[in-house]
Amino acid sequence: MDLKIPSTGKKRVVIIGGGFGGIEVAKKLKNLDVQIVLLDKHNYHCFQPLLYQVATGGLEPGSIAYPLRKFMQDIPNGLFRMAEVRHVDTAIQKIHTDIGDLHYDHLIIATGSTTNFFKFPDEVSDKMMQMKDIPQALNLRSFILENFEEALLTYDEEKKEELINISIVGGGPTGVELAGALGEMRKNILPKDYPEIDFRRMQIHLFESSDRILSAMHIDNSSKALKYVKDFGVNVWLNTMVTDYNGDELTIADGKKIKCGTVIWTAGVKGNPIGGLADAAMAGNRILVDEYCQVLHHNNIYAIGDVAAMINEQFPKGHPMVAPVAIQQGDLVAKNIIASIKNKEIKSFKYFDKGAMATVGRNKAVMEAKGMRMGGFIAWLAWLFVHVMTLIGFRNKITVTLGWLYNYITYDRTLRLIIRPFKNNNEKQ
Amino acid sequence: MDLKIPSTGKKRVVIIGGGFGGIEVAKKLKNLDVQIVLLDKHNYHCFQPLLYQVATGGLEPGSIAYPLRKFMQDIPNGLFRMAEVRHVDTAIQKIHTDIGDLHYDHLIIATGSTTNFFKFPDEVSDKMMQMKDIPQALNLRSFILENFEEALLTYDEEKKEELINISIVGGGPTGVELAGALGEMRKNILPKDYPEIDFRRMQIHLFESSDRILSAMHIDNSSKALKYVKDFGVNVWLNTMVTDYNGDELTIADGKKIKCGTVIWTAGVKGNPIGGLADAAMAGNRILVDEYCQVLHHNNIYAIGDVAAMINEQFPKGHPMVAPVAIQQGDLVAKNIIASIKNKEIKSFKYFDKGAMATVGRNKAVMEAKGMRMGGFIAWLAWLFVHVMTLIGFRNKITVTLGWLYNYITYDRTLRLIIRPFKNNNEKQ
Repeated sequence: MDLKIPSTGKKRVVIIGGGFGGIEVAKKLKNLDVQIVLLDKHNYHCFQPLLYQVATGGLEPGSIAYPLRKFMQDIPNGLFRMAEVRHVDTAIQKIHTDIGDLHYDHLIIATGSTTNFFKFPDEVSDKMMQMKDIPQALNLRSFILENFEEALLTYDEEKKEELINISIVGGGPTGVELAGALGEMRKNILPKDYPEIDFRRMQIHLFESSDRILSAMHIDNSSKALKYVKDFGVNVWLNTMVTDYNGDELTIADGKKIKCGTVIWTAGVKGNPIGGLADAAMAGNRILVDEYCQVLHHNNIYAIGDVAAMINEQFPKGHPMVAPVAIQQGDLVAKNIIASIKNKEIKSFKYFDKGAMATVGRNKAVMEAKGMRMGGFIAWLAWLFVHVMTLIGFRNKITVTLGWLYNYITYDRTLRLIIRPFKNNNEKQ
Repeated sequence: MDLKIPSTGKKRVVIIGGGFGGIEVAKKLKNLDVQIVLLDKHNYHCFQPLLYQVATGGLEPGSIAYPLRKFMQDIPNGLFRMAEVRHVDTAIQKIHTDIGDLHYDHLIIATGSTTNFFKFPDEVSDKMMQMKDIPQALNLRSFILENFEEALLTYDEEKKEELINISIVGGGPTGVELAGALGEMRKNILPKDYPEIDFRRMQIHLFESSDRILSAMHIDNSSKALKYVKDFGVNVWLNTMVTDYNGDELTIADGKKIKCGTVIWTAGVKGNPIGGLADAAMAGNRILVDEYCQVLHHNNIYAIGDVAAMINEQFPKGHPMVAPVAIQQGDLVAKNIIASIKNKEIKSFKYFDKGAMATVGRNKAVMEAKGMRMGGFIAWLAWLFVHVMTLIGFRNKITVTLGWLYNYITYDRTLRLIIRPFKNNNEKQ
C-alpha cells in the first residue's frame, strides 16, 4: 500500500537516514521547490561520536539525540516519517518500507553503517556488545553495571574477575575512547561505588589486530595514544586477533584464553545498504557511486556517507566512514540536485580532510590536521570544543558542556543507572 | 543460600527500599555502630513527584534518578545490594531475596506502593499505562509518540483520533499535573512537530470519580486547579467512574464510550508489602504499625511510608501516601533505633503536615500549608523551588533547573525521543 503523504504536485526528494549526511541534504534543499521526505527508523538524530559517553554514564542519551521532527520544523518543504526501508524498486521509482510504499523523483540513500562481525557466527557475535546506536549504548551501560552487581554476590574469585573484566576489540577511535573512559572509571569512580571489589583485579583489555592503535592517524599519534591508554591501566594487545568468544572466555589467535564477561566489539563496520540495487552497483555492503555520488547503473539515486563507496586513485577502498565525508557528500548532492533542476553544471566531489582526533580519558587527546599534530591537554580542549560545536541544538550543546564540566570537577559520572524500560508489564505492542 | 555480605560482627539493620523513607533511615544511622544494608530492585533512587515530566519529555530520567551506590558513599557503615525481596521469615529473622537470604537484627520495610487497578481484570489493566517508576515513564513517553507517528499513516479519521486522544484516570496530583503537561504540549509543541495533524481533534480527558479534582486539598484549590486544567483544553469529567477499556475505547459508568488509544491510570495506589508477616499485621496491602512505626505482632520490624498504615483518630485510614510522611517516619525510626540501643526513651510519631501543592502546566499551580492557600504564578514558583530543593544531588538540582529554564523560555520540551532499549539483539540475559 502507498504510504500516506500529503500530495503537493512537486517533485519528491526522499532521503533515507537522518544521520549526518541525510540531515545535511534536507537542510540544503529547504528553499528548493520540491517536497522533501526524510525517513529514519528512529525519531531522532544521534550524535554517534559521543555514544561511548552514554555507555559509560557520562552523558544522558537526550544530550546526544536530537528529535528529527524538531529538525524538520526548519524545513518548511519537508516532512518526516519513522520508517524502516526494505528495498527500492528502481523500475517504478518506489521504495518499500515497513509502513508503506513511496514514489521518489530523487532518492538519497544515507543509511550509514552497522557493526561488522566479519566471519563470526551469530552464536559468537550475539554474546558481544556493540555500540552503534543509543539503545545499544544504554544496554551496554546497564550490562556492565549489572555485572558489577553480580560480582558482589559470588564467592568464586575466578567468576568475580570474569564479571568485572572488560575487553574491547578494535583499536580505532571508538575502541580507544571507550578504553580511556573505562580506565578513568576504574580509577576514579568504580572503587567508590564498589568498595568491596579489589580493582587491582579488574582488567581492561584492548585488542588490535594491526601493529598500532588509531592506525588511520599518524604513527606519532598512535604512540601517544598508546601511552595515554596504558597510563589509564588498559592492557593493550597489538597484532592480536580475537578468534572466539563463548560468553565467559575470549580466545585470541595463538590460542590463549582470557576470562571476560563483557566483550565490546568496535573492530569493524560495514555499509548498511537497502535492497533492490543492481549487483554491479554494490561493492560488498557499500553502494558504488560516481564522483557526483550518483549510484552506478541507476538514475536519480544517490548514496552518501558510510554506505557509499566512491572509489578513485586517492581512495581505492572508498572514503573513510566518518561524519565529515557524509556531511560534505550531503552538501554536494543537495547542490547538484539544485543545479540540475536549474539546468546548471553539477560538480564532482572533493573531500576536504579536516583531520582526525581522539580523546583518551581525562585531559588527554591526540589530533592532527593539515600536517599539524598535537597531543595532550590542548588537544583534549580542542576535542571538547569541536564536539560541542558540532552537536545539533543549543540545548544539547549546553547540557553536554555542563555535564562535562560537572564530571571534570567532581571526577564523577553520575548516570550509573540500570534502566531497563522493557521489564514492566504495560508494554502494549 | 545466604547472601554474601561482609561480616562485621555488628548488629545489622536491613532497609528494604531506597525511596524517600529508606534513604532517610540510612542517612540518620550513618554514625551508629551497626551495619546498614540497603536493598532496592533498582540501583537508583527515583524522585517520583517528577516522573510525569520524564513521561512528557520535559526532563531526562537521569535528572530525577540518583545512583544508590553514590548515596551509600556517604554512609561508611552501609552497603547496597540490588535485590528484590520476596518474604521475611520472622521466626529466624531472615529475609529471602532473589539473590539470597539475609539475617537482620532490625528490619525496615520501606517498599512504597504500586499501582492499584482495583477490580479491573488483567486484560483491562494491561492495556492501561502506569507511571510509578522510570521505566514506566519512559515507556509512556515512547508510547504516546509512537501513537502520533502511527496517526500520520492512517486514512481513517476515526482511527486517527483514537490514536492521538489521551485519557487520564484519576484527578489526584499525578493525574492533574500530567493533564496540565499534556495540555501544554498539545498547545505549544505537538502542532509544530506534527503539522499534518489537526490538533482541534485531539482530546485530553481527565476522569475523576469524586466531585472534585485534588480532593485532598481545600475546595478552593480544587476549583482553581479545575479552571487551570480547563484553560489548557483538558476535558474534565467529575463524578465519573471508568468501568472498562478494550485498548481502543474507554467505557464510563453510564455506558458512554470514548475512543482513546492511550489511557493512563493514576487513580489508585496500594501498599507494596513483602510476604511473611502475620495476617493480623496487614490492613489490605498496607502493613499495620504502632505509633513507633513498629509492625504489629512482630519484633524488630518497622514499616514506614506508603506501605505502612499507622491508624489513629486523626488518620483512621493511615497517613497520606506522600513523601513527607515517609521521610518523617524514616527519621523517627532511625532515632528510635539509636535511642533503643542507647537505652533511651523512644518517641512516637507526630506527622508534621507541610501542606500540599500541585502544578498545572506553565505558570500555574495551587498550594496550601497551615491554613494559607495560594494559586497562580507565585504558587508555581514555589512549586519549582520546593521540587528543585528536595531533589537529591547537586547535579540533579542544576540539570532540572536549567532544563526547566530552557523549556520555559523556548516553550519546548526537547526530549521527544522514542528510545526502546530492548529492540536490539545484543541483550545477553
